[in-house]
Amino acid sequence: MGEKGAAGDNISFLLSLRAVREFRPDPVPEKVIGDILEVARLSGSASNKQPWEFVVVWDRATLRALAAVEGYAYHLKDAPLGIVPVMAGEREEQESYDEGRLCERIMLAAKAHGVGSSIGWFVGSGVAEVKELLGIPQERRVRSAISLGYPDGAARRRRGAPARKPLSEIVHEERYG
Amino acid sequence: MGEKGAAGDNISFLLSLRAVREFRPDPVPEKVIGDILEVARLSGSASNKQPWEFVVVWDRATLRALAAVEGYAYHLKDAPLGIVPVMAGEREEQESYDEGRLCERIMLAAKAHGVGSSIGWFVGSGVAEVKELLGIPQERRVRSAISLGYPDGAARRRRGAPARKPLSEIVHEERYG
Repeated sequence: MGEKGAAGDNISFLLSLRAVREFRPDPVPEKVIGDILEVARLSGSASNKQPWEFVVVWDRATLRALAAVEGYAYHLKDAPLGIVPVMAGEREEQESYDEGRLCERIMLAAKAHGVGSSIGWFVGSGVAEVKELLGIPQERRVRSAISLGYPDGAARRRRGAPARKPLSEIVHEERYG
Repeated sequence: MGEKGAAGDNISFLLSLRAVREFRPDPVPEKVIGDILEVARLSGSASNKQPWEFVVVWDRATLRALAAVEGYAYHLKDAPLGIVPVMAGEREEQESYDEGRLCERIMLAAKAHGVGSSIGWFVGSGVAEVKELLGIPQERRVRSAISLGYPDGAARRRRGAPARKPLSEIVHEERYG
């Protein structure tokens, strides 16, 4: 990159996001949560339907219960905070896409404040269990949750950065084939 | 928001993103496209599968043809550039979510450089037509495209900003119900 000024800063910021799954127990300040929710609120969506609500969870027993249901959201266990998007349950494909956009923004807003995050998926019986735990109506759709908290740097250094495919493997010009 | 420093700047940046559907004809510099693709490349994905490739399209005839298929990607017609994510086609729900994360990052990377963008959907027969136009194998999944270009400010001002639901309508603490 190496640009000067705001463009370079913003690109560097976007490039800096990594999933964080190990957290310090320090609470996330209300002001930071406010910024995260505001960035989430302004997410774009198909036909601007904004097909989402959020359950913000601090309660340790609830976070542990969510971490334990079928799926891959185990990292909620030690996170000081979790956000569970509750989607309208009307248009599966578009809502999954919109939920991805939303969650990327939540992770970036957290990162802006030095707060780490990662996405966990609920699968199989985990989906119904989450609805039961959080009082979410059956007709709504739940598929993911975001763990949030200040990163445990030591755990981080042990893991290193995830590999990504090079551009030469994934970019095609004008036509795929 | 009103914070000082990098956190406030990054939050303001995230809050500033709006879909842009009217473009000036000026080309998007190669350096900017490079940054956008690099931000896309580093996107997170379920199980780090990175289930994507991209077709970058500059050719006017191709962009017009893509804009004309069944769906909502008409804004490719006058965009100097389009990016079509080609997804692996293995896990429908996770890939739709990952495509949303990816496209949000592409839009933000473009915005960092003052480049506007919007997401268009292909539906019905449009999906097969896009595959045919771009030489994408049948087993791959195509569902959206991103138009990119410098915003036509006059058109923008005529439209105004999209409404979003207030936080009070979408945020629940600890439990939904």
